[in-house]
Amino acid sequence: MRDVAVIGVGMNRWGELWEKSYRDIWTEAALEAISDAGVDHVDALYVGCMSGGLFMGQEHLGAALADQLGMGPIPATRVESACASGGLAFREAYLAVASGEHDVVLASGVEKMTDVDGAAATYALSTAADQEYECYQGITFPGLYALMARLHMHRYGTTREQLAEVAVKNHRHGALNPLAQFQFSVTAKQVAESVLVADPLRLLDCSPITDGAAAVVVVPASMAGARHPAVRVAASAAATDTLALHDRDDLCWLKSTDVAARKACAQAGITPADLSFCEVHDCFTIAEILVTEALGLAERGRGGAAAASGETALGGRIPVNPSGGLKAKGHPVGATGIAQIREAVLQLRGEAGERQVKDPKWGLTQNMGGTGASSVVHIFRRG
Amino acid sequence: MRDVAVIGVGMNRWGELWEKSYRDIWTEAALEAISDAGVDHVDALYVGCMSGGLFMGQEHLGAALADQLGMGPIPATRVESACASGGLAFREAYLAVASGEHDVVLASGVEKMTDVDGAAATYALSTAADQEYECYQGITFPGLYALMARLHMHRYGTTREQLAEVAVKNHRHGALNPLAQFQFSVTAKQVAESVLVADPLRLLDCSPITDGAAAVVVVPASMAGARHPAVRVAASAAATDTLALHDRDDLCWLKSTDVAARKACAQAGITPADLSFCEVHDCFTIAEILVTEALGLAERGRGGAAAASGETALGGRIPVNPSGGLKAKGHPVGATGIAQIREAVLQLRGEAGERQVKDPKWGLTQNMGGTGASSVVHIFRRG
Repeated sequence: MRDVAVIGVGMNRWGELWEKSYRDIWTEAALEAISDAGVDHVDALYVGCMSGGLFMGQEHLGAALADQLGMGPIPATRVESACASGGLAFREAYLAVASGEHDVVLASGVEKMTDVDGAAATYALSTAADQEYECYQGITFPGLYALMARLHMHRYGTTREQLAEVAVKNHRHGALNPLAQFQFSVTAKQVAESVLVADPLRLLDCSPITDGAAAVVVVPASMAGARHPAVRVAASAAATDTLALHDRDDLCWLKSTDVAARKACAQAGITPADLSFCEVHDCFTIAEILVTEALGLAERGRGGAAAASGETALGGRIPVNPSGGLKAKGHPVGATGIAQIREAVLQLRGEAGERQVKDPKWGLTQNMGGTGASSVVHIFRRG
Repeated sequence: MRDVAVIGVGMNRWGELWEKSYRDIWTEAALEAISDAGVDHVDALYVGCMSGGLFMGQEHLGAALADQLGMGPIPATRVESACASGGLAFREAYLAVASGEHDVVLASGVEKMTDVDGAAATYALSTAADQEYECYQGITFPGLYALMARLHMHRYGTTREQLAEVAVKNHRHGALNPLAQFQFSVTAKQVAESVLVADPLRLLDCSPITDGAAAVVVVPASMAGARHPAVRVAASAAATDTLALHDRDDLCWLKSTDVAARKACAQAGITPADLSFCEVHDCFTIAEILVTEALGLAERGRGGAAAASGETALGGRIPVNPSGGLKAKGHPVGATGIAQIREAVLQLRGEAGERQVKDPKWGLTQNMGGTGASSVVHIFRRG
């Protein structure tokens, strides 16, 4: 397979964008990525979107967006894996370039979540979990993560304060990101006293409902040129786990992330200790704790302590979510995986502004669907 | 890229399967394909599904089905392109094998459409068209194809009887297919007198609402073995057109099918005259007429006459839809593209029973989303 590079990135300002349609926000991101790449066409596009049907009454998004971009008749493919749709769309774009099938491919993601009311959004998000065995029995998506949090607290002694420290860190990072939905800091006290969603998870433990899009341009490394510092795709891996939480061997272990990360590290020829930063799937504060453990950034059970100690903050041993993560940057589910990759590229180029990690060489992105039934891990390398 | 072969196929009996879930029907098809291939594992799976959210309240189908098959943690990817979801899922599986990323890949499709009522199904199907500019204005999906039919009749003199002959032919073929939803013949008079859906299209001009699944196993050609007569993937191509009908240069010309078919023929090194049979997207009788023209099987404007003359029937010059097509076999939208490929493989193996095309060498499948906003064309070769 051919070596692959990312040569362009784009993203709109995320938030509750009631005055814009999915076409508007996606096109802003796509045109910015194409302009950043300095290309005048794309050969194919991929778009990650979780539920065009339930959020917008529009499926067939590949064709819709190729048309909107004025680039038909290029092939266009929508990829879905719940909240990991963006990461998996990037992986398919990567394979299309690595295989030799296409040269210039736009990998993108979009979700327009605020055109439906809260109950409809909660229902739409619950389709990432097992409808028959989980949601139809009455549990919501935050409820599932709350179960994981309770067990982690019981088994490892993780505290309410450690959960809060994840949100505090990611809001601090997000305040440095001019495209983040929430550009303000919060205190551990504010998190711990925010309204209860699903015990022990409170409002500020949860990522928000967001409208947003992101896009990147992928080419063979030989075509990358000197417009930007080079960023290679060093590894791409995806894995699955049981859809329902009750089928897992261990509710506190994200097997799909573990499997995908091991594969990716082997492909890149590195260990987790070599990573300069990670962008991970903190849909809830407990999720970031579980992910840092599954990625091998913290010992099992020590994810909460790692966050509280500052090890995973900007300036710490291994910065996690310098972008602000899903928590502060926002979580338009299909776009999240692509925005993680945009952040990795900006960091490796040295263009991340106030949230720049010092002299990074390797960056990892981890995007996750449902309660970890799917995970997609990519590793990027400078130069 | 590596040469790719299809070594296993599976499909359940299609119909209104109220006693079965999407998991049941998909697993029947998947296990049959795996058994037919004689493999004991798959390295990855792809699943085409148009709207898990609107039809079943379940997204995240890749992970759900890898789990159901007991094959987690394999990577699993859902692909969507409205009614072309199956064809595009196969294309992504093909690229995954051709690239060298995976060796044994299950390409599948599923749609469970009858668990919602007719109005909800009509709404779900309309998400293949342009919601903002078409459906929210009140037009249904059959209404869009009716516009295309009206213009074709006006411009080329296509008759009501010629439309009916497409349905008559495909029902005659479907009656020979033991897995088809409708295994009975109809007369042209019955079609022309069936209840009006969207003038000039009547009930028997329309493909049905169907529950169904199909699956095939894809491997590098070098791994194909001698279990079955060899069937190679000779070409894979996809293309798009405007989402909304009113944006087209010509309402009667399926540009996405034309572009994809030309690319595919060039890749396979053949012309349409070399084809032994085609499986095409006859979601409505007018669709088959338009597709036979776009594929170059009939001159522009002559698609209706070709059907009426018997040229496209089994035993004719170029048999179209020997399986019975969407019209008689049924149309579980995400599964249709994969079932077309299953039929192509059975025909090229010489295992198509009473509907066997005589000594076929090349078979083409054409799967289409919406009113042709996306098309996916594959060409298969015996030997």
